[in-house]
Amino acid sequence: MEQDVQQILEEALAEGQNVLIEGKVASYIPELAKADSSNLGCCIMNADGSMYKAGDYNIPFTMQSIAKTFSLILALQTSGYDHTFSKVGMEPTGDRFDSILQLELKDWRPFNPMINAGAIVTADCIAAADPFGEFLTLVRKLCGNPKIQLNEKVYHSEKRTGTRNRSIAYLLKSDHVLDGEPEDVLDVYFRMCSVMCTAKDLAHYAMILSNKGVDPKTGERLLDADIVRIVTTLMMLCGMYDESGEYAVKVGLPSKSGVGGGIVAVGQNGMGIGTFGPMLNKKGNSVGGERILQYLSERLGYHIFA
Amino acid sequence: MEQDVQQILEEALAEGQNVLIEGKVASYIPELAKADSSNLGCCIMNADGSMYKAGDYNIPFTMQSIAKTFSLILALQTSGYDHTFSKVGMEPTGDRFDSILQLELKDWRPFNPMINAGAIVTADCIAAADPFGEFLTLVRKLCGNPKIQLNEKVYHSEKRTGTRNRSIAYLLKSDHVLDGEPEDVLDVYFRMCSVMCTAKDLAHYAMILSNKGVDPKTGERLLDADIVRIVTTLMMLCGMYDESGEYAVKVGLPSKSGVGGGIVAVGQNGMGIGTFGPMLNKKGNSVGGERILQYLSERLGYHIFA
Amino acid sequence: MEQDVQQILEEALAEGQNVLIEGKVASYIPELAKADSSNLGCCIMNADGSMYKAGDYNIPFTMQSIAKTFSLILALQTSGYDHTFSKVGMEPTGDRFDSILQLELKDWRPFNPMINAGAIVTADCIAAADPFGEFLTLVRKLCGNPKIQLNEKVYHSEKRTGTRNRSIAYLLKSDHVLDGEPEDVLDVYFRMCSVMCTAKDLAHYAMILSNKGVDPKTGERLLDADIVRIVTTLMMLCGMYDESGEYAVKVGLPSKSGVGGGIVAVGQNGMGIGTFGPMLNKKGNSVGGERILQYLSERLGYHIFA
Amino acid sequence: MEQDVQQILEEALAEGQNVLIEGKVASYIPELAKADSSNLGCCIMNADGSMYKAGDYNIPFTMQSIAKTFSLILALQTSGYDHTFSKVGMEPTGDRFDSILQLELKDWRPFNPMINAGAIVTADCIAAADPFGEFLTLVRKLCGNPKIQLNEKVYHSEKRTGTRNRSIAYLLKSDHVLDGEPEDVLDVYFRMCSVMCTAKDLAHYAMILSNKGVDPKTGERLLDADIVRIVTTLMMLCGMYDESGEYAVKVGLPSKSGVGGGIVAVGQNGMGIGTFGPMLNKKGNSVGGERILQYLSERLGYHIFA
Repeated sequence: MEQDVQQILEEALAEGQNVLIEGKVASYIPELAKADSSNLGCCIMNADGSMYKAGDYNIPFTMQSIAKTFSLILALQTSGYDHTFSKVGMEPTGDRFDSILQLELKDWRPFNPMINAGAIVTADCIAAADPFGEFLTLVRKLCGNPKIQLNEKVYHSEKRTGTRNRSIAYLLKSDHVLDGEPEDVLDVYFRMCSVMCTAKDLAHYAMILSNKGVDPKTGERLLDADIVRIVTTLMMLCGMYDESGEYAVKVGLPSKSGVGGGIVAVGQNGMGIGTFGPMLNKKGNSVGGERILQYLSERLGYHIFA
Repeated sequence: MEQDVQQILEEALAEGQNVLIEGKVASYIPELAKADSSNLGCCIMNADGSMYKAGDYNIPFTMQSIAKTFSLILALQTSGYDHTFSKVGMEPTGDRFDSILQLELKDWRPFNPMINAGAIVTADCIAAADPFGEFLTLVRKLCGNPKIQLNEKVYHSEKRTGTRNRSIAYLLKSDHVLDGEPEDVLDVYFRMCSVMCTAKDLAHYAMILSNKGVDPKTGERLLDADIVRIVTTLMMLCGMYDESGEYAVKVGLPSKSGVGGGIVAVGQNGMGIGTFGPMLNKKGNSVGGERILQYLSERLGYHIFA
Repeated sequence: MEQDVQQILEEALAEGQNVLIEGKVASYIPELAKADSSNLGCCIMNADGSMYKAGDYNIPFTMQSIAKTFSLILALQTSGYDHTFSKVGMEPTGDRFDSILQLELKDWRPFNPMINAGAIVTADCIAAADPFGEFLTLVRKLCGNPKIQLNEKVYHSEKRTGTRNRSIAYLLKSDHVLDGEPEDVLDVYFRMCSVMCTAKDLAHYAMILSNKGVDPKTGERLLDADIVRIVTTLMMLCGMYDESGEYAVKVGLPSKSGVGGGIVAVGQNGMGIGTFGPMLNKKGNSVGGERILQYLSERLGYHIFA
Repeated sequence: MEQDVQQILEEALAEGQNVLIEGKVASYIPELAKADSSNLGCCIMNADGSMYKAGDYNIPFTMQSIAKTFSLILALQTSGYDHTFSKVGMEPTGDRFDSILQLELKDWRPFNPMINAGAIVTADCIAAADPFGEFLTLVRKLCGNPKIQLNEKVYHSEKRTGTRNRSIAYLLKSDHVLDGEPEDVLDVYFRMCSVMCTAKDLAHYAMILSNKGVDPKTGERLLDADIVRIVTTLMMLCGMYDESGEYAVKVGLPSKSGVGGGIVAVGQNGMGIGTFGPMLNKKGNSVGGERILQYLSERLGYHIFA
């Protein structure tokens, strides 16, 4: 059986490599445009300690939107459920991740914490003297990797060029959704997006979420079970931008992608998956990573409703 | 254990009755406004044959939007995946169930089959000489109740007053999404919404979905496993109108509600739940039904990510 | 001077003919697609009885949206200012003439009487036993042509294919803006759009508007001065669909166009202009007619702010 | 006749004072909230040198959106027609003056130069080493008042609190509409809004516009006639925010209002009007000023189509 998983994972990697040509590297942040388009890797980690890996599973990249899940966790931990969800909704939306219109048309609250506007709000909800410090501590703990670091170049690149996120933050301030100053909140937001991780780090994180927040090695509870439930549910419903529905039908695992090329996918029964491949489709999701996950889901019955 | 479920179900019913006062009976269709606001009931059915029931689990009501799930099944069965999803998307939306604006703003395809525009499209995709006849046959089979019937009064009431759905259908025709004539498609749509069922019928239907499409009594496959996966996933993501996200966080079961007061909820491991209570919240979902389901989810650990 | 006007009009016609190639005949109504794309004509009529004409000034075509101005007049005459403007606004909009989204996003009242939704409302506001009969009487009187008739073929073509207008009418009914039945109101609307006129007829109509509603030949007041002021102002602000602003900057005369190819333009001091040319630009306005009017405006100083 | 105008102007002032109670002083900029709500004044100036004045016609206030007309003039003078209108449209819009949604939904160009987004663009189009210096020179010249100055307090108040305009500017930058840096363009924009003028200054400005750009005292051409035509037309179509249509029907003069309480109205035949009254209606227009202008229009026949 273990051999089966490893073999199917390698087939999945090969399938993923075949579709890389359909994607494009993110270009809207200059530093991201330098990614190696041939990269592709995957890591599967189980609570029982078993691990399967293939390709570039150990190459670091920036988290980008995957950081939104950690930011939500920290907001819930430090500001609580009621305060956080008085500032951001829980509803999926068919709009693009960087859409502004919903803020004007429908509600001053961003739809959910998985789009940019929502994550800027959860960053603002982190009640801590050093929000980014807390973030880094949390990421290292949940990824099981104390060496995780900020990529200063990407951070400065995002900060310098992030005009659309700046527009969103000032609009949220104008509507009295943000308590902090837009530039301060954005600084935390840009730093969080620029933290480096690997597919293996993400597999560990997903394994912890699948294990209901408990570290299987130590038995230590790293996350409150309610927070795990909330974050996992929102990943299922809105973790893949405006492709979340199609992805859920095809792959069927709570997941979150980032334009750095990563996808974190929460399996069942203490299983976690991380993928990395910077070639993105039009929705901003890794083409190779999605293909790998769909292959694994079909061949290994990972779909939550299959 | 069986006694536990029955006792907790009765507690859930009492909890549900307490919140009925917060709801309102649907008024936009004259015939629906005549519902008995004190009604509330629930039925849980398992593939092993066990069943738990409480309150008005056997009082018939019209399916309304729950019919959208059967319509999607029929579209997939008769027109196939590719054709159906070339006409309607798979993405959740934060817009109201009867929203028109998305059709003008974003895409000529309705976002998903669980909103009115999307269900009018799936009704149009049913490739059959007698679409409504096929629908009734399917409903009877999946609900395990050959006596299920159309409510003629509600059907005529909807047909006479459904100006907003009529507006949507003509817009879809204008954008060349509908193949059939709007009035013909609407006639099928209004009939489907007006079919009568009980909470027990819905529990049976959900039990079949949870059992991957196989009737546990006979071993007969009633639905293709792929279709079960698609329908269940879309119920999870967009089955509760623009409250789907909050409901998923709180209850965590693939569900579909109707303004007739019903909710069908797909449990895990061959378990199905149906609730009925015509008092609705502002989003159009049964307040009593939602309360029962949240209570069951919390007390019995039904949440898919708990 | 008279010779000058005639000569400049002929130059204008030649200019207009040069740009016909940039346009396209309206295709969304089958009957309109049969128009002769080479047609182009213009007529200028003054209150002093002088008249200048060029090209196909006497070829009949259907009014289409030009009918919206007569419909507004009748609504104001029979239902009054307060009732009419409680149902339709007076604000220009940058949206397309057949836009639906504003009705959902902003206000249940259509923005103004010059877009389809607004004209369907003014048609509903005509308080008369025979609304279309009153319409025809008014048109004949203001155009000074008792022979003006309905084009039955175009009327039936529009009625059969007008799915988008039907969608708008049912939406307005659903929002309780329409008092009448959608199909009844649409029948009046489609008939009004299908009335035949010539550029000469339109020049007479514009001359009456420019003369503050008084027929210069008889001294008879045909229209109340307040109604003339309202209609002329709304033509200035929103008579040329979502090209109204650019047209006002370039031509500077209160005007209304129709997809049948006509433009009626109200000059100053008792002067009226009608043009006809079925080749339309992307906004739905006659390319030849616009070119003629811009040429006349520049050469003869017709711009209201020049 | 002169006495008549003076008497009717005084009646108009009294009418205006009666409706002040319906308004509210602008509160979104802290410094504006300190305005004296009882202020109301008007000045009428003619090219023949005659002048009529009433009430607080000589009390200074900040221009706010009236500055948008000067900014458009400067953009046209320094960047030309083609460049300016490649960056901003000419179409009126029914959206609010500070709307963002159109930028996402419809076009990356703001609809017109009279809304905030459009004026931020025209500020960016002023091709000059010292854009604000050029602005001040132009304002002083057209208002005939060399003492006109910036209000430093209001400027700093706007700059500190202008989060919504900041959001708009960053969105325009993100969509590559702005050439300059958002903060630089906003600094010019906020300064322009904060320039002080009186109703008398505005009357002089409007008189020059009505006189086709020529100073009647000296015969000097202050503005190109084409620019006068463009600015005046856009004032007519979109100078009064999303009340432009209703105002045009009622008053019928090309006008521009500002939330500082001013309205500049261009009369016919070399006549200009300025009003001042900081009590605003819901659309952001001076209630007293509008009432005065409507009274003058009705009693003195000022409506351009009356």
